[in-house]
Amino acid sequence: MKKGSLLILSGFSGVGKGTVAKQLVERYGYSLSVSATTRKPREGEVDGKDYFFKSVDEFKNLIDYNGFIEYARYVENYYGTPRKFVEDELKLGHNVILEIEVQGAFRIREQYPDALLVFITAPSAKEIKNRLLGRGTETEEVIQKRLNRALEESADMDQYDYIIVNDDLDQCVDDVNSVVVAQGCLKDNNLDLIQETIEGLKVL
Amino acid sequence: MKKGSLLILSGFSGVGKGTVAKQLVERYGYSLSVSATTRKPREGEVDGKDYFFKSVDEFKNLIDYNGFIEYARYVENYYGTPRKFVEDELKLGHNVILEIEVQGAFRIREQYPDALLVFITAPSAKEIKNRLLGRGTETEEVIQKRLNRALEESADMDQYDYIIVNDDLDQCVDDVNSVVVAQGCLKDNNLDLIQETIEGLKVL
Repeated sequence: MKKGSLLILSGFSGVGKGTVAKQLVERYGYSLSVSATTRKPREGEVDGKDYFFKSVDEFKNLIDYNGFIEYARYVENYYGTPRKFVEDELKLGHNVILEIEVQGAFRIREQYPDALLVFITAPSAKEIKNRLLGRGTETEEVIQKRLNRALEESADMDQYDYIIVNDDLDQCVDDVNSVVVAQGCLKDNNLDLIQETIEGLKVL
Repeated sequence: MKKGSLLILSGFSGVGKGTVAKQLVERYGYSLSVSATTRKPREGEVDGKDYFFKSVDEFKNLIDYNGFIEYARYVENYYGTPRKFVEDELKLGHNVILEIEVQGAFRIREQYPDALLVFITAPSAKEIKNRLLGRGTETEEVIQKRLNRALEESADMDQYDYIIVNDDLDQCVDDVNSVVVAQGCLKDNNLDLIQETIEGLKVL
């Protein structure tokens, strides 16, 4: 059985990564990795769906047992990507999506050199700003913070394998799926088929 | 305007390259390059559609004027890929298909390093043989010749960028289109967008 692809989705805040990921699950049967965190659930968040909610002790124990592909601490909370789900799904031949920020993406690539790093962006800087503004209910300070973060992230875009514009959602989802399909068709991922073909033709 | 992709389709005889190419034109708007040849038209063949039919003098004149991306002589006939059509279409941002055998594909790659070399195959060696048999009207000698040629070609499969199985036609056409879409999304083909994004975010 062919192993699945590990698809890392990053991108600016508000650019629609989450919606793209959801569509890849619904339309193309991708498996979405759920992160673990020590922060408290917000209203409406479901354990095992939005996050795996863990105590700090549980989280640290998982770190000790190599239970995370990567983890990081933001402010006073831990966030991590559980290893078992990702590896089980890949072995089953499923494509797995991780939605993760830039530094986490690079840490994952160190362990999974075949991971596809895809950066989702908007058609222009102006449009990125529009989307950062969100529903127009944020303070000037929050918006400035998001803009600064976007500027930081933009400096790392050229470390990604693929840059995909989310202008039309369906198109964006198709494009992301295309880079995963293309990876499966790469010659280096079909050496067994080539070998079988050569051997098979010899004995015909 | 983004340049189009140059898609080179090769594959074993009978594997359906021509049908795949036709579907890419119909469903996805690709431009299909038409070869020039000095051989006589067969019944039903249309000049400018199946081939551009040329006299030997005309053909040699085109060679002298660098009119071909590549050309070759088989038995006593010349075959060549006219340069102008391919370059005009690429400049217009269209994806161009060349259906061409292995050695021609490699000569084209030397001039167009971004060309996508896709080898179309069947799911198994046995199935390749079934398709070589065609309509069952060929002599044993013709079939053996085709098999020998397939064996030769199989030795070069690992020089291709992508290996795509034509089991289900629609799936195969989608897969070929995916590798072209993926090429357009490659980071290196979006450096302008990255630069504009960085500069644009700085001044917001």
